[in-house]
Amino acid sequence: MAGKSRRKGAKSLAPAAPARSPLAPARFGPLPEIAGLRLAAASAAVRGRAGKDVMLAELAPGTTVAGVFTRSQTASAPVDWCRAALRGGRARALLVNSGNANAFTGAAGLAAVQRTARAAAQAVGCQPGQVFVASTGVIGEKLPDQRITRVLGGLKRRLKPGAWKPAAEAIMTTDTFPKGASRQAEIGGRPVTIAGIAKGSGMIAPDMATMLAFVFSDARLPAAVLKRCLVAANARSFNAISVDSDTSTSDTVLLFATARGPRHRPVKSTTDPCLKDFRAKLGEVLTDLAQQVVRDGEGAGKFVTVNVRGAESARAARQIGLSIANSPLVKTAIAGCDPNWGRIVMAVGKAGEKADRDRLGIAIGGTEIARRGLAVPGYDEAPVAAYMKGDEIEIAVDVGVGRGRFTVWTCDLTHGYISINADYRS
Amino acid sequence: MAGKSRRKGAKSLAPAAPARSPLAPARFGPLPEIAGLRLAAASAAVRGRAGKDVMLAELAPGTTVAGVFTRSQTASAPVDWCRAALRGGRARALLVNSGNANAFTGAAGLAAVQRTARAAAQAVGCQPGQVFVASTGVIGEKLPDQRITRVLGGLKRRLKPGAWKPAAEAIMTTDTFPKGASRQAEIGGRPVTIAGIAKGSGMIAPDMATMLAFVFSDARLPAAVLKRCLVAANARSFNAISVDSDTSTSDTVLLFATARGPRHRPVKSTTDPCLKDFRAKLGEVLTDLAQQVVRDGEGAGKFVTVNVRGAESARAARQIGLSIANSPLVKTAIAGCDPNWGRIVMAVGKAGEKADRDRLGIAIGGTEIARRGLAVPGYDEAPVAAYMKGDEIEIAVDVGVGRGRFTVWTCDLTHGYISINADYRS
Repeated sequence: MAGKSRRKGAKSLAPAAPARSPLAPARFGPLPEIAGLRLAAASAAVRGRAGKDVMLAELAPGTTVAGVFTRSQTASAPVDWCRAALRGGRARALLVNSGNANAFTGAAGLAAVQRTARAAAQAVGCQPGQVFVASTGVIGEKLPDQRITRVLGGLKRRLKPGAWKPAAEAIMTTDTFPKGASRQAEIGGRPVTIAGIAKGSGMIAPDMATMLAFVFSDARLPAAVLKRCLVAANARSFNAISVDSDTSTSDTVLLFATARGPRHRPVKSTTDPCLKDFRAKLGEVLTDLAQQVVRDGEGAGKFVTVNVRGAESARAARQIGLSIANSPLVKTAIAGCDPNWGRIVMAVGKAGEKADRDRLGIAIGGTEIARRGLAVPGYDEAPVAAYMKGDEIEIAVDVGVGRGRFTVWTCDLTHGYISINADYRS
Repeated sequence: MAGKSRRKGAKSLAPAAPARSPLAPARFGPLPEIAGLRLAAASAAVRGRAGKDVMLAELAPGTTVAGVFTRSQTASAPVDWCRAALRGGRARALLVNSGNANAFTGAAGLAAVQRTARAAAQAVGCQPGQVFVASTGVIGEKLPDQRITRVLGGLKRRLKPGAWKPAAEAIMTTDTFPKGASRQAEIGGRPVTIAGIAKGSGMIAPDMATMLAFVFSDARLPAAVLKRCLVAANARSFNAISVDSDTSTSDTVLLFATARGPRHRPVKSTTDPCLKDFRAKLGEVLTDLAQQVVRDGEGAGKFVTVNVRGAESARAARQIGLSIANSPLVKTAIAGCDPNWGRIVMAVGKAGEKADRDRLGIAIGGTEIARRGLAVPGYDEAPVAAYMKGDEIEIAVDVGVGRGRFTVWTCDLTHGYISINADYRS
């Protein structure tokens, strides 16, 4: 939901947002090559600006694919397209642009997707239904798709294994750093690689949270198995983060398996024990990417982990965690280094899930503040206030009614968020 | 959830919040006297500060009462007390303090309520179960109830009909102005008066939104009838506002009928046609008070009306309206005078209610921006951007799927909100 002007556009009274989030990792990658995957990025001036804004991924024949998408009722044309294309279960190309979301563009939006998919299909030599597309940027403006299709030839010529960083940079909007993550896993004793990129920093909330994430593996897995692995990993990663409770029209996570890595024994079912490590490492890659999105949250000054336990169920724990993570009063207290646990009580109370006021426990940074519905006798705020001056904050809540657990990641709400979003022009 | 230090406490980089909301009405009241009601306020230093922080209302024998409360799972001790006291349906006194919410205070909290209610009962000469109490302020600290009970004698001596303004001031926390509203109505051709006060400016969201509101009438109505009138009026007033989506542990709306006005014919049922005007005017008083709460929203620079129509039901229209009103991206766009209608599309889409992307219509300040899922041909942003520089903004959305309507009121999200809440210490 932005051009790349986040840092330029801020004509605010508050201090300008930094060029790079203070919570950013030290560097991008390195990410390993994935057999059967080549990447390239280009500048297409989708929004009339300089800088990379289109990426193409070419996938080897036989690549399977799975996806999860925004639950928005006003989903974008590319989301509609991908949902339909997933029925085939096969992918040969992924084409992504930033600068324009191609959302709320009616029949013209769908036509633009069809044209770009056809052009990409021609470029890599496949059916249009094997081309996956995603767009991110301004809503409600027609996608200038000819700007994208005219750079396809150049993109194709420059395709390279391992060109992760330019690809990650091309999909950025208000992001201040490119996001990538990878893990090595094994299936039946044979090595497989998982690597992916993501973008997102505002309009981030669960159901689907991400913005965009594209994850690739060289494993040999049927699309149906891939889908179940993705749904499970997504539930505890992208669906466990929130920057501002807003949900994009374009949120997309796609998982591709090229089947070009070392041969492993066939896997027919998601419950096959030989998938255990792959599923765990996939979860790690998605969580790593999801946390990077939070670390690039608009205006974020602190990375916050909310651990909820003692809820009626994991689902209830997630709702309570999100209620805390999305509360403007909790988020501003964190921004102000204020261990204002009364606001946490409030957020638990309003979550709409069962909670026992008189059994509730709260800890910040490992220091117990409230136990069984009361401030801990002799509670000393000073060390907790000192802890809150750090940029990694952990809040733990025991709801006191059951055994449900969930962890949510979020960031604080600062003047930077207001500056970025009150000054950014659509 | 605050002391009165809102203006003092702000040591922010952004401009200091104003001493009085720019959206405040020109003056308080005047509010009429209600037969059978006397009011007084006092300084009890509940939080160790100067200024009025306790109010007492004395009600004539025979006064009936109804209430609606927060749906928080961590409701305060006074809310628990009032819920129990309402079973009797009769009230003789209302005692309210600011500075301390007596929430998350366990058994000690209930004991403190019992002591204050007993003391107030003794002061006015009634049963403790006819005393209603409310507390607002910091969560998780023991209520110093002896500070309240020791000023009861003085309060009783100073009780006066029509002392609305000191009463409204005594219940303020981060409020920048006292809030009152009144209407004259008729029941069966006989005049009745309705008047009330409210407080609230942060932690405001539906289910129950208010903070605190106390409304009084001289009508002669059974408690059961009063309850149904209150629930209906509350649904389209306090449950139709949101400042920051946060819900207090203490939200309380109480409606008292002293039965001391001009004699009207007995009313046994809420559906009695002779109640029509009373119900309408009660709705107006509650809406007036609710809108004043929004106008005092923390950091508010603009008063925003969100009119939703074409939803599947009124309930769905309310959900969509609240999704728009609570969206940080919509609220910051309004703060920035940015007619960023893509963010409105996003908020409709994420509401979880049925919407037809290709039939959606959006207007701002009466100017149609999008129709049937597309920007209006030749849409000129300039006049809408000019309109958005004003401080009263109207957003109209046609969801395109049914006939459900609802109106929600909210305010923008500004640097002022961050300053107030990131610098305020619990």
